[in-house]
Amino acid sequence: MQLPSTLLENAVNEFAKLPGIGKKTALRMVLHLLKQNANEVELFSETIAKMRREIKFCQRCFNISDSDICAICANRQRKQEMICVVENIRDVIAIESTQQFNGTYHVLGGVISPLDGIGPDQLNIASLVHRIGEEKTAEIIFALSPNIQGDTTIYYIQKKIQHLPCTVTTIARGIAFGGELEYADEMTLARSMANRLPVQQYVKS
Amino acid sequence: MQLPSTLLENAVNEFAKLPGIGKKTALRMVLHLLKQNANEVELFSETIAKMRREIKFCQRCFNISDSDICAICANRQRKQEMICVVENIRDVIAIESTQQFNGTYHVLGGVISPLDGIGPDQLNIASLVHRIGEEKTAEIIFALSPNIQGDTTIYYIQKKIQHLPCTVTTIARGIAFGGELEYADEMTLARSMANRLPVQQYVKS
Repeated sequence: MQLPSTLLENAVNEFAKLPGIGKKTALRMVLHLLKQNANEVELFSETIAKMRREIKFCQRCFNISDSDICAICANRQRKQEMICVVENIRDVIAIESTQQFNGTYHVLGGVISPLDGIGPDQLNIASLVHRIGEEKTAEIIFALSPNIQGDTTIYYIQKKIQHLPCTVTTIARGIAFGGELEYADEMTLARSMANRLPVQQYVKS
Repeated sequence: MQLPSTLLENAVNEFAKLPGIGKKTALRMVLHLLKQNANEVELFSETIAKMRREIKFCQRCFNISDSDICAICANRQRKQEMICVVENIRDVIAIESTQQFNGTYHVLGGVISPLDGIGPDQLNIASLVHRIGEEKTAEIIFALSPNIQGDTTIYYIQKKIQHLPCTVTTIARGIAFGGELEYADEMTLARSMANRLPVQQYVKS
C-alpha cells in the first residue's frame, strides 16, 4: 500500500502496531482522525500519553489504579481476608463485572510458562506469599486459565503457602452455561464428570 | 464494564470513538500500550498529534500531502492533462496500488447526496470545473461509487463541463474478476449485458 504522505504513513504504522490492527484498518482510523477537529485529535493523543505517564499499579494487589492503593483494596466493605488470584487486569475487570465477588485480588502478571521464559520470579508471586502471611488471609481463590501453565502456577503457589492456615480453592471448571455437551472437549467433559456435584449443592449455588 | 481507573477509562473511551472499535477492543489496545515502554507510547501519541497538526491537502487535487502540491501533481512523468475524479483519499490509494494509472487525481470529498445534506457546494466540484477549464484537461475519468449518488454526481459535473473540449469517461462496471454470475445482483448483471464489449477489445485490454 503506497501512501501519499510520510506523516500519514507514520501515523498508520503506529496504529498498525496495536494488537489485531492491520494496515488497512489503521488507515481507516487515521483518516477518521484526520476528519475530526484538531482539538479532538489533540485530546485523543494527550489522553493516551497521560494515561501511560500517570497510571499506577496498586502496591498491594498490582491492579491498575489512579493512586498507590486501588479502589478495591481501599474499600473496607470488601472482604480483605479473601484474595482472588488472577493472571491480568482483564480478568479483574471480567470478575468485577459479574458483581458476585466481594473480596480482593492479586494480579500475577501472567502464569508460569518455562517455554516462554516466564518463571515465578517474573510474576508477582513472592509478594502474594508475603501478603498471605502478613495479612493472615483466610481464603485464596485461584481464577487462572484452565491449562497446563495455569495448573503449574497453582501447584507452585500452593507449595509455597502450604504451611499457612488459609483455605485454597479454584473456580469451578466444567461445561459452560448454555454450552452443548457434544461440542465440549473431552478434557472438560471428563473433568466435569469426575468433579460432579450433589444436585442439592448445585441448586443452592 | 467497570474499569478500575479513571485514566484507563478515559483512554478506553478515546479509542472507542474510532470507527469499528468497541469498548472491549479499545481496552485490549490500551492494555497493550500500557505494557510498552513509556517512550514508545509517547511516540505513538506524538505521531498522531503531529500528523493531524501538520498534514496538508494538495491545493490542486485535494489529495493528502506533506507539501502544498502533492507528489502526484508535482510529478512531470505523469499525464497532467488526465484527471481521475474520486470520492476520497482511500480511492486514490486503491487506484495507485494497481500501478496502472499514470494521470492525476481530483478528490471530491464525497458525492452529492441530498438525503445526507451534501450538495455540490460541500464538495470540491467548483475547483474541478475551474481546473479543467484552466489546465485544458484532455480527459476526465470518473471513478465514483456505482450507486445513485455517484451517478448523480457524474451527471451534475458533466453538465458543468459540457462546453469544454475534454473527453469524459467512467471506469467500467460489470461482473468482477473471479465473481460468479449467479451471485451478481440484477442491476450489475443487466448493465453488464447492456454494456457488453466486442471480445477483441476485451482481450486487448
